[in-house]
Amino acid sequence: MTTLAALNATSRDEFVVLLDGVYEHSPWIAAAAWDARPFATLAALKHALVQAVRAGGRDAQLALLRAHPELAGKAMVAGTLTAESSGEQQRAGLTACTPEEFATIQRLNAAYNARFGWPFIVAVRGPRGSGLTRSEIIATLQRRLASHPDVEFAECLRQVHRIAEIRLAEKLDTQPHRGRRVWDRAEALATFSEPPYAERGELTVTYLSPAHRDCARLLARWMLDCGFDSVREDAVGNVVGVYEGATPDAPRLLTGSHYDTVRNAGRHDGRLGILVALEAVAALKAEGRRLPFAIELVAFAEEEGQRYAATFLGSSALTGDFDPAWLDQADAAGITMRDAMRAAGLPATMDAIAAERRDPAHYLGFVEVHIEQGPVLAELDLPLGVVSSINGSRRWTGQITGLASHAGTTPMDRRRDAAAAAAEFVLAAERRAAAVPDAVATVGMLEVPGGSINVVPGRCRISLDVRATSDAARDAVADAVLADLAEIAQRRGVDCTLTPTMQAPAAPSAPAWLARWEAAVAALGLPVHRLPSGAGHDAMTLHRLMPQAMLFVRGGELGISHNPLETVTDDDAELAVAAFATLLDQLARE
Amino acid sequence: MTTLAALNATSRDEFVVLLDGVYEHSPWIAAAAWDARPFATLAALKHALVQAVRAGGRDAQLALLRAHPELAGKAMVAGTLTAESSGEQQRAGLTACTPEEFATIQRLNAAYNARFGWPFIVAVRGPRGSGLTRSEIIATLQRRLASHPDVEFAECLRQVHRIAEIRLAEKLDTQPHRGRRVWDRAEALATFSEPPYAERGELTVTYLSPAHRDCARLLARWMLDCGFDSVREDAVGNVVGVYEGATPDAPRLLTGSHYDTVRNAGRHDGRLGILVALEAVAALKAEGRRLPFAIELVAFAEEEGQRYAATFLGSSALTGDFDPAWLDQADAAGITMRDAMRAAGLPATMDAIAAERRDPAHYLGFVEVHIEQGPVLAELDLPLGVVSSINGSRRWTGQITGLASHAGTTPMDRRRDAAAAAAEFVLAAERRAAAVPDAVATVGMLEVPGGSINVVPGRCRISLDVRATSDAARDAVADAVLADLAEIAQRRGVDCTLTPTMQAPAAPSAPAWLARWEAAVAALGLPVHRLPSGAGHDAMTLHRLMPQAMLFVRGGELGISHNPLETVTDDDAELAVAAFATLLDQLARE
Repeated sequence: MTTLAALNATSRDEFVVLLDGVYEHSPWIAAAAWDARPFATLAALKHALVQAVRAGGRDAQLALLRAHPELAGKAMVAGTLTAESSGEQQRAGLTACTPEEFATIQRLNAAYNARFGWPFIVAVRGPRGSGLTRSEIIATLQRRLASHPDVEFAECLRQVHRIAEIRLAEKLDTQPHRGRRVWDRAEALATFSEPPYAERGELTVTYLSPAHRDCARLLARWMLDCGFDSVREDAVGNVVGVYEGATPDAPRLLTGSHYDTVRNAGRHDGRLGILVALEAVAALKAEGRRLPFAIELVAFAEEEGQRYAATFLGSSALTGDFDPAWLDQADAAGITMRDAMRAAGLPATMDAIAAERRDPAHYLGFVEVHIEQGPVLAELDLPLGVVSSINGSRRWTGQITGLASHAGTTPMDRRRDAAAAAAEFVLAAERRAAAVPDAVATVGMLEVPGGSINVVPGRCRISLDVRATSDAARDAVADAVLADLAEIAQRRGVDCTLTPTMQAPAAPSAPAWLARWEAAVAALGLPVHRLPSGAGHDAMTLHRLMPQAMLFVRGGELGISHNPLETVTDDDAELAVAAFATLLDQLARE
Repeated sequence: MTTLAALNATSRDEFVVLLDGVYEHSPWIAAAAWDARPFATLAALKHALVQAVRAGGRDAQLALLRAHPELAGKAMVAGTLTAESSGEQQRAGLTACTPEEFATIQRLNAAYNARFGWPFIVAVRGPRGSGLTRSEIIATLQRRLASHPDVEFAECLRQVHRIAEIRLAEKLDTQPHRGRRVWDRAEALATFSEPPYAERGELTVTYLSPAHRDCARLLARWMLDCGFDSVREDAVGNVVGVYEGATPDAPRLLTGSHYDTVRNAGRHDGRLGILVALEAVAALKAEGRRLPFAIELVAFAEEEGQRYAATFLGSSALTGDFDPAWLDQADAAGITMRDAMRAAGLPATMDAIAAERRDPAHYLGFVEVHIEQGPVLAELDLPLGVVSSINGSRRWTGQITGLASHAGTTPMDRRRDAAAAAAEFVLAAERRAAAVPDAVATVGMLEVPGGSINVVPGRCRISLDVRATSDAARDAVADAVLADLAEIAQRRGVDCTLTPTMQAPAAPSAPAWLARWEAAVAALGLPVHRLPSGAGHDAMTLHRLMPQAMLFVRGGELGISHNPLETVTDDDAELAVAAFATLLDQLARE
């Protein structure tokens, strides 16, 4: 056991000894991190260790990976594991493998090593202490065996840092209690699903389904348990909790995120933002603190647009943008939204919904915590990022029409190849977006319908999705790509149709609120990284009514989301709660 | 009425007067063509007129198109058509339109004019004198209304030249009798189809089907009618006719093409080569001429590989390459080739098939006439072309695997976009082939499976087809494209698999035989144009056994083939018969 203060006071050699075993057989990492003393926070120490590995370069990183034992491998059998590895593999139940499981792991280990040249590495201990089960470990090994080597290399380093983080917490005897409560509550919410999670192992919670109603009830109970002064369900099913300020007429800080999910979803998308705020308010209540402003936490009932052909139903009610026509929309089973609301006990009238509109005069602004749903923070090894803007987007679908002809008899200079024109279009989109900071352009649909190996493509279906931090930047990229396409079509003698299917304005973060999040991240001893949000969020809707800014939390495995593989660690959730609390303190001081 | 000799002797002004009306309201064409006097042949005169139009440039060509009346248009109603147009429109039955047909044509004419800016032009008189029916004219107008303007412009000029050709034949009172017999016989063969042509309007004749047997019987009768000394059906269903030479032991010239078709085929693919040779032998017989060599005409029973998973069954028997395993292949109905042969009365034994192998010592070589099945001759306005080589080909199918990710949250520099990699591959194939004369490379299959507008493509299916006039050139192009793909995959961090599916060696024409075809074309007063064959032909198989060379005949509408729109004119067929006869004469003189 040691302390951060002790670590800050030691020599390099002692430092290395104190951190022995945090990184498997690799004392050079601690030795390099020592230069960055003193560490203001545990997060700063972990960041220094991560930076040491990044600075070490590819060869040292490969050696670090190779310093790890195989899971359930020869070293385990021979009893030559490090103490840390031995404990971890034992707690993961690997020492109790059946002969079949053991044989499977051996076979997969061998294949993995042959493919990548280093052993498979996974943090077998998870936030609940229980960690991964044997079958989960085997499934992960099987899945990652198919990864691209570069991707797998990065994933192994991420796992190494995660293992180090868990080992370090034990050495310093400091556990992420608040982050773990956030994590446990996300697990508890995930038991509600349609069909039940236990039945299919998939998490799906769509608007006003029984699972959705169960989530609402549990969230309301937690809000009361955590000390919110009032909790109500509003006219569209949002769960609204208010933690009053020091005075009855105090202005309000609005926060929240959504509790519905996509089909076969992850457990943190949306919910993390509710649970982090919940935990921060619980801390205020525990301390008996009242701030010069009230906190209104809204668990939005709907954001994902899964059951009905409309999105942001929950936040739209707060901004007065709930479209009356939505009530008449029917789901796949023919149930209208109005009937679904009535069945849920909601008033299902536009009067009631319109009354939910917030008066911006009573609000300071809106803040939202959300998982990144992208790879940026994971690749930069940063737990938190500050959102500069929710990107504006435009989408098109369409087709390029050339002339189908014989692949053998049509000379290259006499072709009207729809696929070749589409290929230029794909690369033009890529090039135009790459030239503008934080802009993205994607051709996600690309298909020569009924394509034959020996026919010059006469048609090619295409799509285009363009996003950027401002509407002007978005339109500049989009216009350039469309102009490129027109030029390509003209030059190649093909026709092209592109039909707009969507347009959403950018929601740049309010500078003052962006600055507050940045200060909160800096206060944790972490570097401040700004990034745009490529996905839409409830904050995009609230943007119409009041200043807003978002905080992103790193996701696991390249930030995968809308997928059961979506993960957030308890340590990162802890940092998100701390950042949220810091923002509240700061705002109270202003 | 005039004659070629008279035309060659006139002044420019008289020439223009004599050719008045050949090109609608456009005396400048005849005036320009006059410079090319004297014309050795009618073909040379027509070529000079075509060249005058080509040299006139786009504006003059557009004026030429605009000088044409609308079909069944105001000029017809008002009686202000030229004598030529009036007769043509009347004979096409346009003056007898029902009110509904008239309204439809008016509406389509207006839409056509609005889209292209010139009137719809089609040669309404066809080879049989009867020409297009009203419903065929309306269908053609509807179809061409959807064409690309550049394609339609070229097609209208082609129709203008065809109209001029027909008008010129009347002025000179010279009809393409031999070409028309070729054309009529192709029509007669097309009445046999599975199901019958009359039932579905589609031509399909697969190996040993009842329609196929009917074709064989009719071909055999024609061979006898035309004066072949012996006609037999061989062990695989080829119809073999021999026109003996001046002496019993004379060497043989082998010629022929196939009489099976693809599904929903054109009428000239394969059959043209049989019918042209038939007509040339008929002429010899009519004159009572015997040459120093015998002519063996083989109507190959199978080339297209439609019923069984094997191609070139007919010619393979002649070269000893008929694979015994083919006999056990079953068609879609489960009927083996052996059983199909037995049902057709063929011996169905490998002994009988192997006995069909020809001894090359008895043969001078193999020549084959075939429609081009490509756009080159049509675009160059040349009726005939000499094949330099049947291209060697290689094919692959495969997949690029990147990483599917969120189109909004994945920055451009962190993507592993399978479609973007495929796009570079498509353009690399195009660029590499364009750099090598007569080489082609095609990515005919291009598909992001289940692509979504907002997902960076994780997979993209691709194919590659490379062909060139020599195996070395083919492999150079293919190797360069594959190296490009490896570089693209490496740079973009994506995986790529390409599996070879086919490889066929090039069959360059024998120089002496190529020279004979060139001399034959030149003797017609036509420019000699060499081009490779991108498609496979029976000559490719015979190439293994003896020298070979092919003559290509221009197809209509960009050379479309394997399609009911495939056409050959009676005038072009006449030239093919003349070229074939010239080649025989020449060979006789050698």
